[in-house]
Amino acid sequence: MATQRMILGVDVGGTNVVVGTVPEDGSTVHGLRQVKTRVRNGADAVVHQIETLIGESLEATRRTVGDTFEVAGVGIGAPGPLDTTRGIVLLTPNLGWRDYPLRDRVSATVDLPATLDNDANCAIFGEWWRGAARGASHVIGLTIGTGIGGGIILDGQIYHGSSDIAAEFGHMTIDSTGRQCGCGNYGCLEAYASGTAIAARARESAEAGADTNLGQFVDGDLSSLSAAVVYEAASRGDELALEVIKDTARFLGAGVSNLINIFNPEVVVICGGVTAAGDRLFTPLRAEVRRRAFRPAVEGCRIVAGDLVGTAGVFGAVAAFKVQTWGAA
Amino acid sequence: MATQRMILGVDVGGTNVVVGTVPEDGSTVHGLRQVKTRVRNGADAVVHQIETLIGESLEATRRTVGDTFEVAGVGIGAPGPLDTTRGIVLLTPNLGWRDYPLRDRVSATVDLPATLDNDANCAIFGEWWRGAARGASHVIGLTIGTGIGGGIILDGQIYHGSSDIAAEFGHMTIDSTGRQCGCGNYGCLEAYASGTAIAARARESAEAGADTNLGQFVDGDLSSLSAAVVYEAASRGDELALEVIKDTARFLGAGVSNLINIFNPEVVVICGGVTAAGDRLFTPLRAEVRRRAFRPAVEGCRIVAGDLVGTAGVFGAVAAFKVQTWGAA
Repeated sequence: MATQRMILGVDVGGTNVVVGTVPEDGSTVHGLRQVKTRVRNGADAVVHQIETLIGESLEATRRTVGDTFEVAGVGIGAPGPLDTTRGIVLLTPNLGWRDYPLRDRVSATVDLPATLDNDANCAIFGEWWRGAARGASHVIGLTIGTGIGGGIILDGQIYHGSSDIAAEFGHMTIDSTGRQCGCGNYGCLEAYASGTAIAARARESAEAGADTNLGQFVDGDLSSLSAAVVYEAASRGDELALEVIKDTARFLGAGVSNLINIFNPEVVVICGGVTAAGDRLFTPLRAEVRRRAFRPAVEGCRIVAGDLVGTAGVFGAVAAFKVQTWGAA
Repeated sequence: MATQRMILGVDVGGTNVVVGTVPEDGSTVHGLRQVKTRVRNGADAVVHQIETLIGESLEATRRTVGDTFEVAGVGIGAPGPLDTTRGIVLLTPNLGWRDYPLRDRVSATVDLPATLDNDANCAIFGEWWRGAARGASHVIGLTIGTGIGGGIILDGQIYHGSSDIAAEFGHMTIDSTGRQCGCGNYGCLEAYASGTAIAARARESAEAGADTNLGQFVDGDLSSLSAAVVYEAASRGDELALEVIKDTARFLGAGVSNLINIFNPEVVVICGGVTAAGDRLFTPLRAEVRRRAFRPAVEGCRIVAGDLVGTAGVFGAVAAFKVQTWGAA
């Protein structure tokens, strides 16, 4: 029986670390493992978590497919900014790392070749490789969770820009005199349409006396309101929650229209927690984009939710390993 | 004596048609000719103008370098949207053409191979090939005249998107509830920072009673105020004109910051009439970008005026011919 080649995918986030074992054709993922990121104990502790998860994932994979596989290496996705060539995390506000050689630490720990790429880039690359954007040559994606990240996939490659910091779609200005963003700038898309901003807008309106049952979802403590609660309340018909999602579609529509006018892509794929809002978000989003962007560019472009919920980053990290190692995914 | 290979560059605009003869190394341009575009008589009349200009340009080139050259073909830049593969102008609001096979008409008329690309793309490609963005792998450019066009040059190639309509930077939303644009949308960059918008903002302020001598530049007829007059008045110290340019820098700064956050380019090159405002525009523009965009992306990026005033489109059309014909410029 022929030996199958597998690649480990590692998705390091501020909340979770996810690891899976993926056959090189990307047909599935074996031994998917996820733990809370041990943020407080520093970067070496996270490398230790990755080592443990890799061991567990390989063990689970062996139980599934037997011993008939070899492991080519480890693709890692992590928050940036990064230096992908040197495999270094330059700075992660969420994790508190600075100039950390994540790629080589993981590689040395598990004695396998490794590559490093940006987590949002990997998520969108995963959707291109095995998900909702499969087969497209011009793919733009947004990952909308706590913040907003982005990815640009052109001709089957991640577009990195001149120093690995391209695709910062969250900090696109959509209202130059608007709401202040965590980055200090005013009117960034992230200040309106991230999970954090969605929760904040809902909270502000509820506190201002809007007609809503949102308080019941959080035992009356509006300070603990999250975007997920807003989506849940909307699904139960809460007026304010529905309004907040409609507004989100409008803001996001301005940002997506900009990206469509700039890139003329075949697909815009939207990943992350926000996709839980479903058609309540996507229907008005598509309408806003039709209103705003160039008609021929809109007509040639699908706007879709990501397929690979929870695993896009793992698949994308594997695809990025393939590109960095062999030239193509 | 070896035969030198030359390529004709044709830049078709709503105002002028410009033609030049360029050696394949792009070292210079011979026989530069320019006439007002004969808009009213339809597309065939413009092809006839191109034919005449090509004849004149070649004749002038012969007088300069003798008969020791051959002509490989004609690169044409024209306003879009276009189908570059089929060489067709799909629609030009300024010229009133629809589905016009410009490339093949020119080719048949002068009996030479021809290529067609977008005029703004060509201008920025020219600046990459022989101008202010030479040597850079990630180039973003804006052409700011009557409207705002754009170009994306990655690894020595024009980025076209999936259907030749990428780089519509003029219709990037920077104020989602802002000033209405000619395209019908609200808050487009073009509605604030195009030559038309610069003139309109100056006129509105003058009519509202701002302290200004702008009226003296136009014999008291503010309706005939142009952006060029605003730049001229600013150079003579007119307060309102200076203010209008400073505001332009702020709006343009939001747009350029978006492009820097999205593309992480080495160079942003700004071409067209607006460069006549000089440092009065560029100094506050760079300051606004430093305030808005990601620091590492800003630090790695020059923001410069185009070098090839009046010829960027010709050089770029020639470079585009080389890429379409031989694969590289």
